[in-house]
Amino acid sequence: MALTEQQLADIAAQREQRATTRRVTVPALEEILFTPTPVLDHGFVRVIDYMGDDGAIVQAARVSYGRGTKRTLEDAGLIRYLIRHRHSTPFEMCEIKFHVKLPIFVARQWIRHRTANVNEYSARYSVLDREFYIPAADQLAAQSTANHQGRGDVLQGEEAAHVLDLLREDSARNYDHYAEMLNENADGTAIDPGRQGLARELARMNLSLNYYTQWYWKTDLHNLLHFLSLRADSHAQYEIRVYAEAMIAMLKAWVPATYQAFVDYRLGAATLSAQMLETVKRMLAGDAVEQAASGLSKREWAELMAVLGRGEG
Amino acid sequence: MALTEQQLADIAAQREQRATTRRVTVPALEEILFTPTPVLDHGFVRVIDYMGDDGAIVQAARVSYGRGTKRTLEDAGLIRYLIRHRHSTPFEMCEIKFHVKLPIFVARQWIRHRTANVNEYSARYSVLDREFYIPAADQLAAQSTANHQGRGDVLQGEEAAHVLDLLREDSARNYDHYAEMLNENADGTAIDPGRQGLARELARMNLSLNYYTQWYWKTDLHNLLHFLSLRADSHAQYEIRVYAEAMIAMLKAWVPATYQAFVDYRLGAATLSAQMLETVKRMLAGDAVEQAASGLSKREWAELMAVLGRGEG
Amino acid sequence: MALTEQQLADIAAQREQRATTRRVTVPALEEILFTPTPVLDHGFVRVIDYMGDDGAIVQAARVSYGRGTKRTLEDAGLIRYLIRHRHSTPFEMCEIKFHVKLPIFVARQWIRHRTANVNEYSARYSVLDREFYIPAADQLAAQSTANHQGRGDVLQGEEAAHVLDLLREDSARNYDHYAEMLNENADGTAIDPGRQGLARELARMNLSLNYYTQWYWKTDLHNLLHFLSLRADSHAQYEIRVYAEAMIAMLKAWVPATYQAFVDYRLGAATLSAQMLETVKRMLAGDAVEQAASGLSKREWAELMAVLGRGEG
Amino acid sequence: MALTEQQLADIAAQREQRATTRRVTVPALEEILFTPTPVLDHGFVRVIDYMGDDGAIVQAARVSYGRGTKRTLEDAGLIRYLIRHRHSTPFEMCEIKFHVKLPIFVARQWIRHRTANVNEYSARYSVLDREFYIPAADQLAAQSTANHQGRGDVLQGEEAAHVLDLLREDSARNYDHYAEMLNENADGTAIDPGRQGLARELARMNLSLNYYTQWYWKTDLHNLLHFLSLRADSHAQYEIRVYAEAMIAMLKAWVPATYQAFVDYRLGAATLSAQMLETVKRMLAGDAVEQAASGLSKREWAELMAVLGRGEG
Repeated sequence: MALTEQQLADIAAQREQRATTRRVTVPALEEILFTPTPVLDHGFVRVIDYMGDDGAIVQAARVSYGRGTKRTLEDAGLIRYLIRHRHSTPFEMCEIKFHVKLPIFVARQWIRHRTANVNEYSARYSVLDREFYIPAADQLAAQSTANHQGRGDVLQGEEAAHVLDLLREDSARNYDHYAEMLNENADGTAIDPGRQGLARELARMNLSLNYYTQWYWKTDLHNLLHFLSLRADSHAQYEIRVYAEAMIAMLKAWVPATYQAFVDYRLGAATLSAQMLETVKRMLAGDAVEQAASGLSKREWAELMAVLGRGEG
Repeated sequence: MALTEQQLADIAAQREQRATTRRVTVPALEEILFTPTPVLDHGFVRVIDYMGDDGAIVQAARVSYGRGTKRTLEDAGLIRYLIRHRHSTPFEMCEIKFHVKLPIFVARQWIRHRTANVNEYSARYSVLDREFYIPAADQLAAQSTANHQGRGDVLQGEEAAHVLDLLREDSARNYDHYAEMLNENADGTAIDPGRQGLARELARMNLSLNYYTQWYWKTDLHNLLHFLSLRADSHAQYEIRVYAEAMIAMLKAWVPATYQAFVDYRLGAATLSAQMLETVKRMLAGDAVEQAASGLSKREWAELMAVLGRGEG
Repeated sequence: MALTEQQLADIAAQREQRATTRRVTVPALEEILFTPTPVLDHGFVRVIDYMGDDGAIVQAARVSYGRGTKRTLEDAGLIRYLIRHRHSTPFEMCEIKFHVKLPIFVARQWIRHRTANVNEYSARYSVLDREFYIPAADQLAAQSTANHQGRGDVLQGEEAAHVLDLLREDSARNYDHYAEMLNENADGTAIDPGRQGLARELARMNLSLNYYTQWYWKTDLHNLLHFLSLRADSHAQYEIRVYAEAMIAMLKAWVPATYQAFVDYRLGAATLSAQMLETVKRMLAGDAVEQAASGLSKREWAELMAVLGRGEG
Repeated sequence: MALTEQQLADIAAQREQRATTRRVTVPALEEILFTPTPVLDHGFVRVIDYMGDDGAIVQAARVSYGRGTKRTLEDAGLIRYLIRHRHSTPFEMCEIKFHVKLPIFVARQWIRHRTANVNEYSARYSVLDREFYIPAADQLAAQSTANHQGRGDVLQGEEAAHVLDLLREDSARNYDHYAEMLNENADGTAIDPGRQGLARELARMNLSLNYYTQWYWKTDLHNLLHFLSLRADSHAQYEIRVYAEAMIAMLKAWVPATYQAFVDYRLGAATLSAQMLETVKRMLAGDAVEQAASGLSKREWAELMAVLGRGEG
């Protein structure tokens, strides 16, 4: 992540501002407000505003006139109960707004979460920066042979080097030609005053999907947890998972009781099907259950054994 | 509106709290934060939290790193442009949370606005208060004879008095029987220790639709404007319109530039159909257009004349 | 449920209509299309339109040009995989529309599912029928002493009889006064031609929450499954659960493979928290785990033992 | 648009299928069901399923038990009334599903309409085809000098030829390298059996934004009209407008009464602000209003004059 002088100054100015408010305030989140956490080679995520805290969830669940109990232990217990029983509406009473810089192919996955508000930098209106994502060497994975939608071993040696060369060269060339079609130098002057320059909304189509875009993304806490549980999951693509992980650290600063319930009842939890439950019951009763007789497919059996921490059963 | 001592104390305590924040803060809204505005005979609406201000809209439209220009005139111009051209996403970046006490039949209209977050007081879990809505004398309207869905003249004399008696007596009796079925006195003690009492989730069905409920209702600014434009409209039922009007005053304190654009481009604006526009063009050209030859139905013609401030044309 | 002659004739006429279509069609659902399933004392639910079938889910998951494989076994396997891994978007490609008649207090719970389309009968515009819900004797439950939000034993003898009398009398009286305020007989004529009659939008407030309303309710299959999993749950209020159960029978006729996956991975499944999983692992390893040392609260421990089919552990 | 033999056969097979249904059916839409309408150089849009018709809107507005009046004139009148007064819920009772092939930069605009269901072809899972969008000569527009977000004159001569060369060469090279990194020939065989090939979810990032993707897109009629009014607008980018225009032709076949109301009250209509209405009133009263004294900005004045069909006033 390389922010310009101007951007760093803007962020510093935001962090300088102070006001007095009657609203609920979270000191631990104020501490990191506006500060970007670097993600990937040029991306970042930062919190730029928020509404509510753990107490606001309790207050909403009780539709109370005042601030709520402030009895931390009881409140945490209620929050755990609400998460466990999927009472989602009290969590919708907290809201958070992020500023995110991310590669376009990551943005295309992210935007599928529809219950959020988004304002994206417009390449119809403005010129994109010369910033593209190149995977780190340890993330340059081969196609998985076991799973159509996954990564296998990390590429090595010549193949790895060649892939990185292709990605770098194509990205750079595509940007050079983007600027040439726009007829615009980096400082905004015309490359050739005799030419008109292609419309921005057309020229952008020459950029590849690893170019960085940025947006403001605002969502309520319930939908944030849903987003994080899907995108911090091991099945999620690495390039979006790292954003989710950075945001989980911010979640912890913001609503620590909700964070802990989320870890216990979502991230660390598992859903067992009717057949899986039946299998566990038989195992507890001492039966030597095997996959073939379990009613589970091989894949489900493997999933269950993984959840129970047993090699292949 | 009769708040209990405890409720007043809770509200006062909320208004006492002060914290320092790096977030955008709106002094004019802080001024009225938590204070209930009375609506109807026992209802109220109050703001209990908010995120963003006029500047946050500008900032989102530009996806900027910093606070935005702070050049008030330019910002207001951009906000007017965004409203006029229905660029709605920057307005979604501001959020507001209300606490509302309202009759159930009003709540049933209100809840149809789906793009909002709601936590309602649960009559499955708790006992409702003995508070019901009785229309003021000047709102006791007859069924309109012109419009299936509207009010006509205000009822007078004996008919009015009789209606008010029926509403009052039935509401009171329904509550008495609700408490009797629950087997619960106002102080929570059993009326008859020898009885079990009907489940709350069942007993509530004996209450009528004018009973008050309450909820926390949170929405973004774009959806708030949509709600207000529909519910402050003259076609909206009076009992919801008064809530919308109270909320428009809060809107003005919160985002004054957006408020003014909303007044000019929504509340005070009119949409003219293709045929209406054609009629206006002909009128401007000096033609003596009449309804029959205008291509407009009688009702549309009357609507157009009303918009143009001309009796019946 | 007592439908009028006219309503029965309308429904019969709908069932008579036949057309040829190129669209995907489900014979088992066509069989029951438009036919109301009675629910509670005067309610019903019926399917009035649908789009898609199990095959449409498979087709969407593959974004295929044609109809999909039609290899039933493989398709069912893919559907199970999608449900298990919470890939929800393919299920959004199927849509269903219901006509439901239900008590207002049930409608108020139901409407909280926001991702659906609703058109409700308007009591601002029309007069409601004289139909209200009275619980059957075996559903007249006392307030639970263990659970704030639940039912205990069924009321017996005098207390039960008295409750039913109160509900019946108040409901009947409220309707009589509703009609009197409207100044309208059942046949639409004026009770007293010398009176104007109160506006419908006001008079309705005298009706109690057990009055029946009706609506068209349309949703996609993903959101239907979510609705059904919450409302067919044992924690849901009986009066909405019976609707969910009637709809599950329709789900089975419509999309049998999805229905089976829903039964196995939702209705019959259980989510175990991180601590619960740890406990199960220790039990499988032969440890004699007890609640106190399990890291589970008493309530969670009881939930886990219930899921594992063990009395109190 | 160049469909493969297999795709054409799949589509033909879909069009062959016939079933008998009790559902509402629209012969004019059945006529074109599944048939792709070509859009841009390789894209298309086709209807693959639908629910409801004009009559279903009327039926929902009345929450009727039967089919509705079938009195075409009255129904059209009600539909016009509903559109004019923005009663949107009855239009949500109709649903339509499209299969669309479109450039990625168009998909990125389209997906911002959140109230729709989408299943997109997955480049994590599958290999994309070698198809990219190259603008036709008459659409190769320069950046507008008047409007940051618009097109100016069409590029001519050498500049145009050069731009087309750059777009074509970069797109082709990017695909060649995509295949090389994947280590996959067009027939799925390995280019070099000694290499592993980069994971698909990574390799795709080398493709540019003019590559075609495809999806199933399903929405209700209310949200479809909203989409079409924004995307068929003259301010929309040409490359998405052509899709909207193709879909409007399908709308006309599906719900002709709604289509006509949409043309009259949306596409051909204009919203006048409070100040614009005041200006029109003064003009009708014979005043020689000028921009400076009108209370309108220059831009608003120009917009009003355009709406009234008057050069510059």
